[in-house]
Amino acid sequence: MTINDDMILLAHGSGGSMMRELIEELFYEAYGSDELLRGDDAAVLETPGSSGRLAFSTDTFVVTPYVFPGGDIGRLAVCGTVNDIATSGAIPLWLSAAFVLEEGLPLTDLRHICASMAEAAHEAGIRIVTGDTKVVARGQGDGIYINTSGVGVLPDDRSDGLTGANCQPGDHILLSGTLGDHGCAIVSCRENLHFSTTIESDAAPLNHLVAAVLTAAPATRCFRDPTRGGLASSLNELAAQSHTMMTIDEEAIPVHDQVRAICDLLGFDVFQVANEGKMVAIVPPAQADAALAAMRGSQYGSEAALIGEVFAMSGTDDGPLVSVRTSLGSERVLDMLTGEQLPRIC
Amino acid sequence: MTINDDMILLAHGSGGSMMRELIEELFYEAYGSDELLRGDDAAVLETPGSSGRLAFSTDTFVVTPYVFPGGDIGRLAVCGTVNDIATSGAIPLWLSAAFVLEEGLPLTDLRHICASMAEAAHEAGIRIVTGDTKVVARGQGDGIYINTSGVGVLPDDRSDGLTGANCQPGDHILLSGTLGDHGCAIVSCRENLHFSTTIESDAAPLNHLVAAVLTAAPATRCFRDPTRGGLASSLNELAAQSHTMMTIDEEAIPVHDQVRAICDLLGFDVFQVANEGKMVAIVPPAQADAALAAMRGSQYGSEAALIGEVFAMSGTDDGPLVSVRTSLGSERVLDMLTGEQLPRIC
Repeated sequence: MTINDDMILLAHGSGGSMMRELIEELFYEAYGSDELLRGDDAAVLETPGSSGRLAFSTDTFVVTPYVFPGGDIGRLAVCGTVNDIATSGAIPLWLSAAFVLEEGLPLTDLRHICASMAEAAHEAGIRIVTGDTKVVARGQGDGIYINTSGVGVLPDDRSDGLTGANCQPGDHILLSGTLGDHGCAIVSCRENLHFSTTIESDAAPLNHLVAAVLTAAPATRCFRDPTRGGLASSLNELAAQSHTMMTIDEEAIPVHDQVRAICDLLGFDVFQVANEGKMVAIVPPAQADAALAAMRGSQYGSEAALIGEVFAMSGTDDGPLVSVRTSLGSERVLDMLTGEQLPRIC
Repeated sequence: MTINDDMILLAHGSGGSMMRELIEELFYEAYGSDELLRGDDAAVLETPGSSGRLAFSTDTFVVTPYVFPGGDIGRLAVCGTVNDIATSGAIPLWLSAAFVLEEGLPLTDLRHICASMAEAAHEAGIRIVTGDTKVVARGQGDGIYINTSGVGVLPDDRSDGLTGANCQPGDHILLSGTLGDHGCAIVSCRENLHFSTTIESDAAPLNHLVAAVLTAAPATRCFRDPTRGGLASSLNELAAQSHTMMTIDEEAIPVHDQVRAICDLLGFDVFQVANEGKMVAIVPPAQADAALAAMRGSQYGSEAALIGEVFAMSGTDDGPLVSVRTSLGSERVLDMLTGEQLPRIC
């Protein structure tokens, strides 16, 4: 049994018997759903509910290192796509898992990663129903890359899906917790940077938090998870989609002291650092308190805060869309990240 | 505008403004659907029909070289997932496209690949509705890897989906055309092997062919596209799923002369060579002629043939599942590919 060998070989991607063994003894073992075990080329899924509307999202994860404080690429790969589906207001139900494995990857690492995927999927209540395995030669990858794509179902009462275009002047901007934990956890363990910190990645499935907010504040306009590019990119995207402007209060935004210290040291703007377990919600003022309470009552939202407000666009739309009121009382423009801050953060 | 530079930079995967430019000026330009242009994290889709059943499949493509005779990784990435969905009997409707780009990839190549994706998607009648872009540093990838995941809708009259488990003794085995073209096209252009051949990859979307067969032969048990591992792996998988045995006739199987010559030269078994535009159909005998005629009347099925038959399993199920009657009249076992024949074929 090749699976007893200690590392991935090119033949594990052959489409032949060794790939079959890898699938049955490792992937099925970790997260074999009924659909996956059926062994067909496509999973057949029965949609509950009657809206007939789906949400569909995809993400490939290339994070390095693939195990980091607070998680690994497997947890990230499940949470990332679950959260993207949740932003639409859909209930994430089914996930695909497609691997690009580098020849020589230790099988113990792959097992560990698949166990993380299974655990995160269980927590989110999503099933891995279809998959793919490719192997590339040494030097043509970097350990493991994982694509997850996900499908969710939209309830009847929000069958159009939530979109960033929904934001309106006067809306409040909520953030579900501290900024910068994922990015700083990754930096802290990259081999050429040694920090003695206890910062852990915040990678987490937020679909239950989103559902709680939507129950408490059904008029919520939209959600966005501030991953690559951080809060700055997310707010700029939302403002551009909805032709609005946004202002946030620096003092209102929770940031761990160690994260602040790492950002100061490296010259990072914490608003541009990646998060993997945080959600921005845009909520009309009448329901903002209810939404905030729902966030704070959720597993990953205890430090949620009201961080800013949406404004009507003034004059031309060439100006900056998002600004920060600093702790000194001044106001500065919050641009999208330009260039690259930290490659392979997710 | 960074997109006017001539190659992919790490910053194109940053989540910031350069990634946004790449998305808008290259991906939107090539295949911007309404859903994609909406710019949310998940696409919202409206399912036609009422069966409420979906098919969902995923594949990552790592083929090298990424442009080859008869196609490129873009065409392959669309056709591969379209065909996997089609095997279930579903109508493929929506596709995701997620890229892992190596720093330094020429943008002209990426544009060319995206144009191929758009063309193949148009031909298949599927829309690219959501996507993702990651960039890895030089030496951590190999030009471009593409994941496509797809969702299709099952018509009411085959809402359970077709599965390999459906094959029954007496069923006929049909093949939609010549074997080995894709694998041999790739071999012929790998830099260390120089052949003067005109063999081209058969990469093609086969959903229209599958639909034609199902209209002509609605009792068709299942389909399988013999990609990695070739016909040998596909038939062994189907036999194992359905607890049957299968025998095929070597003489009945169409193979181009040049493909046969390459296989002889390199010691490949043509039954184990990858195809990317061929479909196996298992059909009850009463509808086999109709199914074959439908294949032959389809764009990619003019050389379709009846190639074998399904038998009841005899005695124990430890023996070989698939055998070939050779042109000499003898019979040999057709095993799944063991080990690796040709890495990164798709």
